[in-house]
Amino acid sequence: ELQSGCFWRGVLAEALATLIFVGVVLGTSAAPEPLAPALAGGLVVGALAVTLGVPQANPALTLALLCTRKLGTLRGATRLLAQCTGAVLASAAARLALPSNASLVTRVSATGTAGQAFVWETFATFQLALVAFATSNWSNPQAGLALGSAVAAGALTAGPFSGGSMNPARSLGPAIVTGIWDDHWVS
Amino acid sequence: ELQSGCFWRGVLAEALATLIFVGVVLGTSAAPEPLAPALAGGLVVGALAVTLGVPQANPALTLALLCTRKLGTLRGATRLLAQCTGAVLASAAARLALPSNASLVTRVSATGTAGQAFVWETFATFQLALVAFATSNWSNPQAGLALGSAVAAGALTAGPFSGGSMNPARSLGPAIVTGIWDDHWVS
Amino acid sequence: ELQSGCFWRGVLAEALATLIFVGVVLGTSAAPEPLAPALAGGLVVGALAVTLGVPQANPALTLALLCTRKLGTLRGATRLLAQCTGAVLASAAARLALPSNASLVTRVSATGTAGQAFVWETFATFQLALVAFATSNWSNPQAGLALGSAVAAGALTAGPFSGGSMNPARSLGPAIVTGIWDDHWVS
Amino acid sequence: ELQSGCFWRGVLAEALATLIFVGVVLGTSAAPEPLAPALAGGLVVGALAVTLGVPQANPALTLALLCTRKLGTLRGATRLLAQCTGAVLASAAARLALPSNASLVTRVSATGTAGQAFVWETFATFQLALVAFATSNWSNPQAGLALGSAVAAGALTAGPFSGGSMNPARSLGPAIVTGIWDDHWVS
Repeated sequence: ELQSGCFWRGVLAEALATLIFVGVVLGTSAAPEPLAPALAGGLVVGALAVTLGVPQANPALTLALLCTRKLGTLRGATRLLAQCTGAVLASAAARLALPSNASLVTRVSATGTAGQAFVWETFATFQLALVAFATSNWSNPQAGLALGSAVAAGALTAGPFSGGSMNPARSLGPAIVTGIWDDHWVS
Repeated sequence: ELQSGCFWRGVLAEALATLIFVGVVLGTSAAPEPLAPALAGGLVVGALAVTLGVPQANPALTLALLCTRKLGTLRGATRLLAQCTGAVLASAAARLALPSNASLVTRVSATGTAGQAFVWETFATFQLALVAFATSNWSNPQAGLALGSAVAAGALTAGPFSGGSMNPARSLGPAIVTGIWDDHWVS
Repeated sequence: ELQSGCFWRGVLAEALATLIFVGVVLGTSAAPEPLAPALAGGLVVGALAVTLGVPQANPALTLALLCTRKLGTLRGATRLLAQCTGAVLASAAARLALPSNASLVTRVSATGTAGQAFVWETFATFQLALVAFATSNWSNPQAGLALGSAVAAGALTAGPFSGGSMNPARSLGPAIVTGIWDDHWVS
Repeated sequence: ELQSGCFWRGVLAEALATLIFVGVVLGTSAAPEPLAPALAGGLVVGALAVTLGVPQANPALTLALLCTRKLGTLRGATRLLAQCTGAVLASAAARLALPSNASLVTRVSATGTAGQAFVWETFATFQLALVAFATSNWSNPQAGLALGSAVAAGALTAGPFSGGSMNPARSLGPAIVTGIWDDHWVS
């Protein structure tokens, strides 16, 4: 299976999609208004889903597909690795290309406790995973639209409480690059 | 009919969709800017419509379908109950997960009288119901998009006047949980 | 032709669509932020196009279709009348339901002269008409989406200069109801 | 080939699409909030893609298609010329129709260095080109949606750093009209 082009194309699509998604989210997070990152994240997920054939670009979704045996072990593990690589690359590039006072890491915000952030983060990831499972077999032509909408809605909901990451790769990349791990367990 | 899997799947989809919708709307309502709840509500309705096969997630729509005999009595009544359960669950969770000074209840705002709020709420619900009826037989692949757009447009229109609920379940849940029933008849 | 159900259904759809469009735009224009009316207008046009079978809801588009003989004289004239009726009804209702200090009329803004407002209004209406002509034969399933996008983009562009009406009915209704006709020729 | 109607229709579509795109972006850039230009640009690209059969409206994309031999030399060169003409016309009109203190030119913003602006601009153009290549053969009905989403997401990401042009024609037009070429190499 390691020699088929389709296998490596899927892995490359995952790495590329995670790199672009994390880059867009980190770049827009520097803006002062909270609406921009949520909309940009949703839009880029919709565009990537149409372009690259619905990659997960999200270790949480890949793990869920692995657990429910919708994805083989080898395929799932390489994709997880590809996602983490893409996220770390994007975070390293973003650290160089962003002003030094920009905060890359998703943190528990001042408007709530870590427990509240955890509840909202779980809720946002739950509704995203529901949509991702329903559209994972790509029979519906509206899959990209639905995925992008769910990402934007989740980021708008959980954003003020926990940063609205919904994506372990998006949280892991900046944490590795900056070395800040406070409250990392939340997301 | 009570023993068919399809029946209970529809009821579960209603409860789940109302839970997610009310959770997203309550979570985003805590944000300071009024654009976020409207967009998040519209986006999540669009995503849920693609995912769960166009649930109503709205007692007003289910009642309308019941009155026009598009939905059987048993089916309609269980769905109404499922929607209220989902909304109350989401409101109870949101009350715990939100800072204590956040206002969950939809209220008549300071920019108008209760009568004006009623007019705008009726107008927003009317255009939503029009779209919901036209797309209820699911022949159009753009149904999710149209429903989500109508929810976002209605919430943007009625939002500054009446909270833009358009959904009795979204108003009922927080009212039960908090015990605040002022001006509840409006929405 | 006056006795066919299809004819009157088209006229009713025009009146209803213009009523809903003008109501949504007037309701959201009361909000302080300029993004809300543009997005709400675009979203409701998209939803109405999917629901009511792409009504024009816009006397400018109906006139253009009349001039290019894509629409018969009788059909065009009744639709124009229906659109004006819908707009006047919506404006009268909005005048009652809005706080008395809200401005209903589209005016030339302080950021430019009337000539500049006219240029931007013409540009916005031109790109909307281009999209409306291309999608008028309803062969493309994305017609509603394209129309809604063009309305929102045009309103965002011309909004700060001329109010971004792009729709004589939306300008006529409030002008009749309030009796304010300053700079009405622009839109 | 110069005598076929299809050839000249493609060239005209390019000129028109670039004119409309640059006009919308310049008009919305005068607004104070940064969200409006990104959303309006994405919406108008989506609407134009549905209307005019996916024009590139972007010299960078046309050059990329030329280099990969997906577009003939003659066809590519005339389209590049048409795009520049459209952009210059739109910029000249916008200069007259905008208040004199509005800044037309994309500049490196105060929040980063020119190098950082270059990195973000490259990143945004890269993800746009990826989507444009994947949708260039028009097999996917969601092409317009994906292109518009990618333009809006890229503009939101690169906007605070480099102006988020992603389009040499959008940068060239105002530079020719105003004669300001500072940091023009970035975009």
